[in-house]
Amino acid sequence: MTTQARAAAESGIAATMDAIGVAAREAAVVLAHTPSEQKDAALRHMAEGLRESAGQILTANARDMQGADERGLSDAMLDRLRLDEARIEGMAGALEAIVGLADPVGRVMQAWTRPNGLQIQRVAVPLGVIGIIYESRPNVTADAGALCLKSGNAVILRGGSESFYSSRAIHAALAAALETAGLPATAIQMVPTTDRAAVGYLLGSMTEYVDVVVPRGGKNLIARVQRDARVPVIGHLEGLCHVYVDAAADPQMASEIVINAKLRRTGICGAAETLLVDLAARDTHLPLLVEALLAAGCELRGDETACSVDPRVNPASEADWRTEYLDAVMAVRCVDGVAGALAHIAAYGSGHTDAIVTDDPAAAERFLTRVDSAIVLHNASTQFADGGEFGMGAEIGISTGRIHARGPVGVEQLTSYKYCVRGSGQVRAP
Amino acid sequence: MTTQARAAAESGIAATMDAIGVAAREAAVVLAHTPSEQKDAALRHMAEGLRESAGQILTANARDMQGADERGLSDAMLDRLRLDEARIEGMAGALEAIVGLADPVGRVMQAWTRPNGLQIQRVAVPLGVIGIIYESRPNVTADAGALCLKSGNAVILRGGSESFYSSRAIHAALAAALETAGLPATAIQMVPTTDRAAVGYLLGSMTEYVDVVVPRGGKNLIARVQRDARVPVIGHLEGLCHVYVDAAADPQMASEIVINAKLRRTGICGAAETLLVDLAARDTHLPLLVEALLAAGCELRGDETACSVDPRVNPASEADWRTEYLDAVMAVRCVDGVAGALAHIAAYGSGHTDAIVTDDPAAAERFLTRVDSAIVLHNASTQFADGGEFGMGAEIGISTGRIHARGPVGVEQLTSYKYCVRGSGQVRAP
Repeated sequence: MTTQARAAAESGIAATMDAIGVAAREAAVVLAHTPSEQKDAALRHMAEGLRESAGQILTANARDMQGADERGLSDAMLDRLRLDEARIEGMAGALEAIVGLADPVGRVMQAWTRPNGLQIQRVAVPLGVIGIIYESRPNVTADAGALCLKSGNAVILRGGSESFYSSRAIHAALAAALETAGLPATAIQMVPTTDRAAVGYLLGSMTEYVDVVVPRGGKNLIARVQRDARVPVIGHLEGLCHVYVDAAADPQMASEIVINAKLRRTGICGAAETLLVDLAARDTHLPLLVEALLAAGCELRGDETACSVDPRVNPASEADWRTEYLDAVMAVRCVDGVAGALAHIAAYGSGHTDAIVTDDPAAAERFLTRVDSAIVLHNASTQFADGGEFGMGAEIGISTGRIHARGPVGVEQLTSYKYCVRGSGQVRAP
Repeated sequence: MTTQARAAAESGIAATMDAIGVAAREAAVVLAHTPSEQKDAALRHMAEGLRESAGQILTANARDMQGADERGLSDAMLDRLRLDEARIEGMAGALEAIVGLADPVGRVMQAWTRPNGLQIQRVAVPLGVIGIIYESRPNVTADAGALCLKSGNAVILRGGSESFYSSRAIHAALAAALETAGLPATAIQMVPTTDRAAVGYLLGSMTEYVDVVVPRGGKNLIARVQRDARVPVIGHLEGLCHVYVDAAADPQMASEIVINAKLRRTGICGAAETLLVDLAARDTHLPLLVEALLAAGCELRGDETACSVDPRVNPASEADWRTEYLDAVMAVRCVDGVAGALAHIAAYGSGHTDAIVTDDPAAAERFLTRVDSAIVLHNASTQFADGGEFGMGAEIGISTGRIHARGPVGVEQLTSYKYCVRGSGQVRAP
């Protein structure tokens, strides 16, 4: 492409994106004051619309699947991309579940009265306009659109090119449902091009229109967003989660928690990747845990001590302590008590979710206090790291950032607040 | 400077800043678990240290004042820069006031139990490492250092070059006090150079070390920080605050609030800049308000209606609706009721602080709900926009951003949180 042609294409993208930004900003003003009933009605229409459009959505998905096949995507990627009647029903059901959540907008979060009589309230308000950048799962189109609507935000969706046609068909159903409910269709917009320049423009040139960007996807996507964004970002880099089994742990409980944390679902960010075992439990707990994991079909990569327990344990390299396997593979290391576990997690952890198994309350409190992760658990599986399991309802992701939202990002975390101050003529003393 | 020399200088700055970053990160680990008593002891030592170092601080300040004089700084700038015994005592007293605030770290913000028995707590933790970039006021060195310490954060301070020697002398007293209290002196660090490349490096190349940057200063500084930062920013752009006087306002109350909002102190961000008057109050309230402001020595720039009231009102231009005067100047415009006020504020406001004066509860509620600013007041002066007036204690600024913190940024807003989950062996169902 000539420089001139590129500039023309880019200016086309700039104009398209600016128009989306303006429309989103206008929609956000409406959504900020849309009654709960109207938002919930729109969500119900959206669920119904997905069911009614199942035919079109599946046709669009077949087109995406064919393209993905031609590009030689992995089986895991193809599975994420694939839709069927059951998955469409799952999407519709997820929208109906969001209807059931409390409206986070307008909540009085705190209220107090000053000695001078000023009554101060901190009241939840929407963030405004949210940009969501995601990869191949087309259901994110519906989930993210619905969570943003419920929280009174306008949203600009930019999905992966692999799922472009599926997302477009899903988006069409959502936009129609918004209009049926008397809301602007522009409350949920989708970037109508797979050109990567649109992502760059969204991240770098739309500070006027976009209040926050939420990336959902793999490491490379998140890293790119964090590098290029000039708007605030809520994202999580990775879930390198640890389970530490203390010498004071109940062996049976430890085994159940480790198996669940690693193997219940290996592909989610709350899945454990590294097992840390107290050196003092080398003879009591370690053999049981290794045997249980191997028997359950998990590949193990261990330090010298772990390798000495069973010849099927392969030696771990330094890289293993840093790897988010997202698979039936676990690194195993012996550490010197809670202090050793804290040091390992501080050095290698990703600040997502970490657990201790112990019957020693002091050890548990020390671990809960000292591990600097979004979620720290005592005697429970790391796979509970999920907005639904926290009772917060659907989530848009798990934040490992420290600003604004940490841990599950549900509808409450998609709000900001303002202070409403009611007086009776107060002026401030000189 | 040759390219080579520049690169050498820059690599020197990079090494200096990286060393500061590493030390801050280490100090943050200590501070996160420092008991309240130890932090408060350090704050008391800091106050005492400022008093004892008054001689050195004033000598350093004289050097800054001379430099500023030679560079021809404005009187307002010189006044901000100037220190004397009383101002040093003021700084020391401000530190002692921070001792009195509740420790925000470790607060259980929310606690609930899930049906499966998991006990979930949301617990406040420090943000980590905070970078503060500010201009000529040397007292920010002490205030910001103390607020970050109280909230368990390590801080990297980068003050303006005009106040470099004053800040360095103040910082030396703080660092000595930290050591006296048994804390790392690196809990509060100051960038030891006035080279602007250090700011660029802090904003763009220290994502590994810095969790958030707080700019304090004028529009240009904040705009630069928001443009260049690759770390999260908590900042406010400007305080273009409005007072809207409704036809249903008590005229006497309206006059007192407007005079106070505009003139109590004109240089603070909560000072009102634009007076909006209900068209229906053109004959009842407008003349009184104009007369009161003129009598108090305020210059007025009005629309046609306001100009028609008094020949001393100068015609306003479009630029006047967009100007933060920070001076005894006020723009005056008549608008068509609450709807007109909302439209004007949406078009020209900065989202900081806006007030309505009215005895009509419906008008007040509409204004409080619809004005999308960090602080909205009914029948009270905009000059209450201040962490102290909100009962939050000292603040590091007023955020007009929507992410993380909005309105006054006190010690609570300088924290993040984590989830502590206590179980009894729970594993997640398939």
